[in-house]
Amino acid sequence: MITKEIAQKLTAVVGNENYQDSKAGRLVYSYDATPNFQSLPDAIISPRNTKEIAEVVKICNEYGVPIVPRGSGTNLCGGTCPTEGGIVLLFKHLNKILEIDEENLTVTLQPGVITFDLIQAVEAKGLFYPPDPGSMKISTMGGNINENSGGLRGLKYGVTRDYVMALEIVLANGDIIRTGGKLAKDVAGYDFTRLFVGSEGTLGIITEATLKLIPIPETKKTMLALYQSLEAAAKSVSKIIASKIIPATLEFIDQPTLEVIEAYAQIGLPTDVKAVLLIEQDGPPEIVERDMLKMEEICKQEQAVSVQVAKSEEEAEALRTARRTALSALARLSPTTILEDATVPRSEISKMVNAINDIAEKYNLKICTFGHAGDGNLHPTCPTDARNHEEMERVEQAFAEIFEKAIELGGTITGEHGVGVMKAPYLEWKLGREGIAAMKAVKTALDPNNVMNPGKVFAKDSRKRVVVSK
Amino acid sequence: MITKEIAQKLTAVVGNENYQDSKAGRLVYSYDATPNFQSLPDAIISPRNTKEIAEVVKICNEYGVPIVPRGSGTNLCGGTCPTEGGIVLLFKHLNKILEIDEENLTVTLQPGVITFDLIQAVEAKGLFYPPDPGSMKISTMGGNINENSGGLRGLKYGVTRDYVMALEIVLANGDIIRTGGKLAKDVAGYDFTRLFVGSEGTLGIITEATLKLIPIPETKKTMLALYQSLEAAAKSVSKIIASKIIPATLEFIDQPTLEVIEAYAQIGLPTDVKAVLLIEQDGPPEIVERDMLKMEEICKQEQAVSVQVAKSEEEAEALRTARRTALSALARLSPTTILEDATVPRSEISKMVNAINDIAEKYNLKICTFGHAGDGNLHPTCPTDARNHEEMERVEQAFAEIFEKAIELGGTITGEHGVGVMKAPYLEWKLGREGIAAMKAVKTALDPNNVMNPGKVFAKDSRKRVVVSK
Repeated sequence: MITKEIAQKLTAVVGNENYQDSKAGRLVYSYDATPNFQSLPDAIISPRNTKEIAEVVKICNEYGVPIVPRGSGTNLCGGTCPTEGGIVLLFKHLNKILEIDEENLTVTLQPGVITFDLIQAVEAKGLFYPPDPGSMKISTMGGNINENSGGLRGLKYGVTRDYVMALEIVLANGDIIRTGGKLAKDVAGYDFTRLFVGSEGTLGIITEATLKLIPIPETKKTMLALYQSLEAAAKSVSKIIASKIIPATLEFIDQPTLEVIEAYAQIGLPTDVKAVLLIEQDGPPEIVERDMLKMEEICKQEQAVSVQVAKSEEEAEALRTARRTALSALARLSPTTILEDATVPRSEISKMVNAINDIAEKYNLKICTFGHAGDGNLHPTCPTDARNHEEMERVEQAFAEIFEKAIELGGTITGEHGVGVMKAPYLEWKLGREGIAAMKAVKTALDPNNVMNPGKVFAKDSRKRVVVSK
Repeated sequence: MITKEIAQKLTAVVGNENYQDSKAGRLVYSYDATPNFQSLPDAIISPRNTKEIAEVVKICNEYGVPIVPRGSGTNLCGGTCPTEGGIVLLFKHLNKILEIDEENLTVTLQPGVITFDLIQAVEAKGLFYPPDPGSMKISTMGGNINENSGGLRGLKYGVTRDYVMALEIVLANGDIIRTGGKLAKDVAGYDFTRLFVGSEGTLGIITEATLKLIPIPETKKTMLALYQSLEAAAKSVSKIIASKIIPATLEFIDQPTLEVIEAYAQIGLPTDVKAVLLIEQDGPPEIVERDMLKMEEICKQEQAVSVQVAKSEEEAEALRTARRTALSALARLSPTTILEDATVPRSEISKMVNAINDIAEKYNLKICTFGHAGDGNLHPTCPTDARNHEEMERVEQAFAEIFEKAIELGGTITGEHGVGVMKAPYLEWKLGREGIAAMKAVKTALDPNNVMNPGKVFAKDSRKRVVVSK
């Protein structure tokens, strides 16, 4: 609870206009993009700079007020839902690109910058920031860093973590620290840069970041391979990579998802095939040409019923956009859409997709699967209705089994969405009790009063979200 | 001190043949490749598997016995010198490559595997493990991971950290945890994989690792650009990268180093120029050809007095080998060789090299500089004599000033060698008191009894190694 005294102290730091606690204002920040999680914050605060953030954090730390840093709230794990109340901290005043350094190939920015704005700004200078999460048009870089966001280009280019070189962080005690630098090599102390990337706001508040850029690829080509068998599609993925080609994008879409996308986007996608691979390669023209030919050949050898290379950039863009609309398209089907991101080693994709289908059948649910096949990062998605409690219970049970299967196959419960509240009950399956204990020790060391986005990552107890009968 | 009781307990775990505490045996492990650091361990232990390591760690943790994990001891920061006694833990029984997974492009291995053996094993399958520290012919992968080793290919391919996907770790309490997986994407909990990479054995014992591999580049070309001005060489580096070429290798060698290398290797290196760049590009033949031509042009525009492309792989290999012998060649000059690795943003190289030369002159020392120009990772090297205390004091002062300058230019005190004992007094310059306090909190959380390689990374107090008059 925020007492009058605390509110006064906070307002003294940020000014009246940057502090609100009206019911309407609090309602707006009571949920994020995750279905089924809502909880009112006590207030919303918008500090104007790092120093103010440090002051705010000190006050919250002193009075035990939870702080939930929030960008655009596009995360899918309940990570920015203020489940324990407290204040939601916004970055609307920290939304500037501070520098694009063309000599060192870096960009330095504040957390409130929109991902897509960053991408456009650096591309205007012939540079490339590869991570491209599905929400990039509205997500903020602060959110991307806190969640270690992935995207469609992860296979070849890695994820957000691979591009963060330096951070400015406000710790729970109000200390401001800087990690890393514009340095390709730096081993001075522990790798706090990467410890904080993906820590979901539970260890500190990121207030500035320097990111690595690379030269923009000269060209890009796109093709669609159609299959009447999941195994054939999965085998193509493995064979492409085993033949030493690392494509920029290697996306998988199953038939139910295809139908939904086509109904929504109407760009003439085939809906009578069992699976589609969307494959892209970028780089120097001669290499792209060579790789595309080789991949086309592999897909055909592996029983693709058709392989079509996009004839123009417009056609390619239409395919990419179609893939990107998967979530929006699926969301039209029913009131609630549960999108997950169980991830397995690339070699286990066909086993995983088959398991998802079996589990969907077992629980009498519709589960559509698409995702980043090259990464083994799948998005089984269930259109459902949160008001139907009986069905929701089946949904929970089905996803619990999906996570269990992913781990059995050497995978993980979340590839790119984060743990937040949603996956916290399952984290122990991946990390073991000992792993969780070690991570909790680090959390407690850096945030002894548990004010930094409390209730996230670690479950209150170690029980499963629902009891799964095995 | 190891009492008879402790020794008996340890021997009961590993067997008599894997425990030694003879004076001769202890002497062998009293130092590593770092000059001027020596301290006797109480015993040397060689556990046969992870379970035994966990048992050993539990005993040491109970009795407060320091544990220093050690590969080949090639590190240059005193990181494996048992400065507080205790036991040196060897990995001679954990030295196997467990699996090369061609479908997921990973290799899983034990810490005792020699880096070069790993590189050769994966190259035999057409795969590539890029990090290539100077000591790779004798260093172990466990050492590389603990130190986050770099090498000549860091600019294009990154460092050890960028290839570690999963770890098995024995924590100070004896718990065995596993981080990550064969997964391009995994955000389940904090990034403990990268927290442990480069943690110098101070947080736990790494007992197994899964590393990412990439397809081996099809071809490689090598050239040498000669300069009569440091600035011209540095400007070439910046301009190559600003023109969107990321070469595989971009090494800088100054005149004093050149002279020493040529005297040692005798392969006809020019010794009448002020600086040399050794440039390599790898990849598809047509791209390598194109990039080499473009880089040749840039070097010439930037006043290179000569640019020579190696005519054969033998000639290229001779140039690479010459560069790799820099340390050995310099070590011939005098009884003691102090090799440092101050690192700056790439754009600041010429300022840094000039500063090093000024500092050498000020303290009347010979300092030769070579290093990874593309990374801004320089190796100022001072041939000296540890027995000459007056000179050694000047050496210390000179390096303190070099570190200070590196930080002033946005750099770091160590790019790839690690902090160990050697750099610990300077760490605060890079991280600030608050940054060190946060890292110490993490260390204490995971190793409350301070048995994991104690005395490394964090200095006993925050004073400088020597008092620098400003």
